[in-house]
Amino acid sequence: MSAPHFFAVSVEGDRIRIEGEEARHAVRVLRIRTGERITVSDGAGTVAEAVVVEASSALVAEVTGRRTIPPSLPRVTVFQGIAKAGKLDVVVQKLTEIGVDEIVPLQAGRSVARWEGRGARIERLRIVAREAAKQSRRAWLPVVGEPVTAGQARSEGLALVLHETADSRLSGALPGAPPERIALFVGPEGGFDEGEVSGLVARGARAVGLGPQILRTETAALVAATIVLGRYGRIG
Amino acid sequence: MSAPHFFAVSVEGDRIRIEGEEARHAVRVLRIRTGERITVSDGAGTVAEAVVVEASSALVAEVTGRRTIPPSLPRVTVFQGIAKAGKLDVVVQKLTEIGVDEIVPLQAGRSVARWEGRGARIERLRIVAREAAKQSRRAWLPVVGEPVTAGQARSEGLALVLHETADSRLSGALPGAPPERIALFVGPEGGFDEGEVSGLVARGARAVGLGPQILRTETAALVAATIVLGRYGRIG
Repeated sequence: MSAPHFFAVSVEGDRIRIEGEEARHAVRVLRIRTGERITVSDGAGTVAEAVVVEASSALVAEVTGRRTIPPSLPRVTVFQGIAKAGKLDVVVQKLTEIGVDEIVPLQAGRSVARWEGRGARIERLRIVAREAAKQSRRAWLPVVGEPVTAGQARSEGLALVLHETADSRLSGALPGAPPERIALFVGPEGGFDEGEVSGLVARGARAVGLGPQILRTETAALVAATIVLGRYGRIG
Repeated sequence: MSAPHFFAVSVEGDRIRIEGEEARHAVRVLRIRTGERITVSDGAGTVAEAVVVEASSALVAEVTGRRTIPPSLPRVTVFQGIAKAGKLDVVVQKLTEIGVDEIVPLQAGRSVARWEGRGARIERLRIVAREAAKQSRRAWLPVVGEPVTAGQARSEGLALVLHETADSRLSGALPGAPPERIALFVGPEGGFDEGEVSGLVARGARAVGLGPQILRTETAALVAATIVLGRYGRIG
């Protein structure tokens, strides 16, 4: 139904060239052929419509149109407590699908899993984000940041920490007009410890709950981000 | 932190008795011991606080308090298009966590997977729901209904069909005051076919989209249910 979607470093000029793994996958797995219509995004808001003119070890396409999708407000960053194996991949995939702009793994006190093989791990999360963005045909690729601790985390705009025992709720903390940026801090299994919460609050964040339900960490991230994006019309 | 949570057929009387697999799991895996505080729900809004007085092949607990949690409005039913292996389990788990009241598998035209082993399959989904409800400490157990086709599906109240090409959005279709019931129809991979959508619309449903993103079926179910529950303060 929709044309296959790809990402390229640049979509400027009359011809777009996609090489390496992305091109191999397109030709061998997706069986993209000469004459086929595709869309190619630069991951930063520009999407080109193009027709494939070469499908071999590289995918070359001739641009027939181009549109720019402005960034939506608020820009949403999720700091996600590092959870058990595989969960972080799921969180990155789902948050990318719904349109979160930035995802930063957070090594929390209660993180059961330790962050290992720094470079390779982050590279893998970026591939997950890219694959999800292709499937969802996003014009913007989310940024997957280097892991931080709660003490190292820096955010601009409204900062909200999910905390089970918080008195106020997430929805109540969202202003009517979309702020420029919202950062959501989501704990690992077992949530943030009190020191992490008070540290974040001392630096201007607000502790909020999601209601009476007790959610798994990966569900909490998706629910909180959906509530925020939904409030400002970015989803739903 | 919180007392372990269980489900029992009844939580009436001074003593609650839990037998079978649930008791075995409690004693052998969770290592519940005499003197420990637990909560037990009947799955229909009543939760008893109790102290364990016997932890052997059966778990017997003396009730110390009891509270009733009224059903929340709107009651939300999700008709979920049967998707590839495992996805339905994830959908049931996540929808239970966030508080959906009823989940009905829907055998859609584009369902890649066929519904097999009717009884055993539905039994498995009910176990998934029960486990998720325990973890989320729910007072209400969601109903997991027998599978239907789009033509067989019957719902009361507001019915909304997720359809990628719909002109209106889900949020725009939700009234200010919570209706008694809302039914959400979520297609399988590839969505509902046009015949299914027009059939549902002919019977009073409204076709709605979730915005520019293209979501996997399991993400769409969770996002749509979160938007609905969030609008009426049941989550977020």
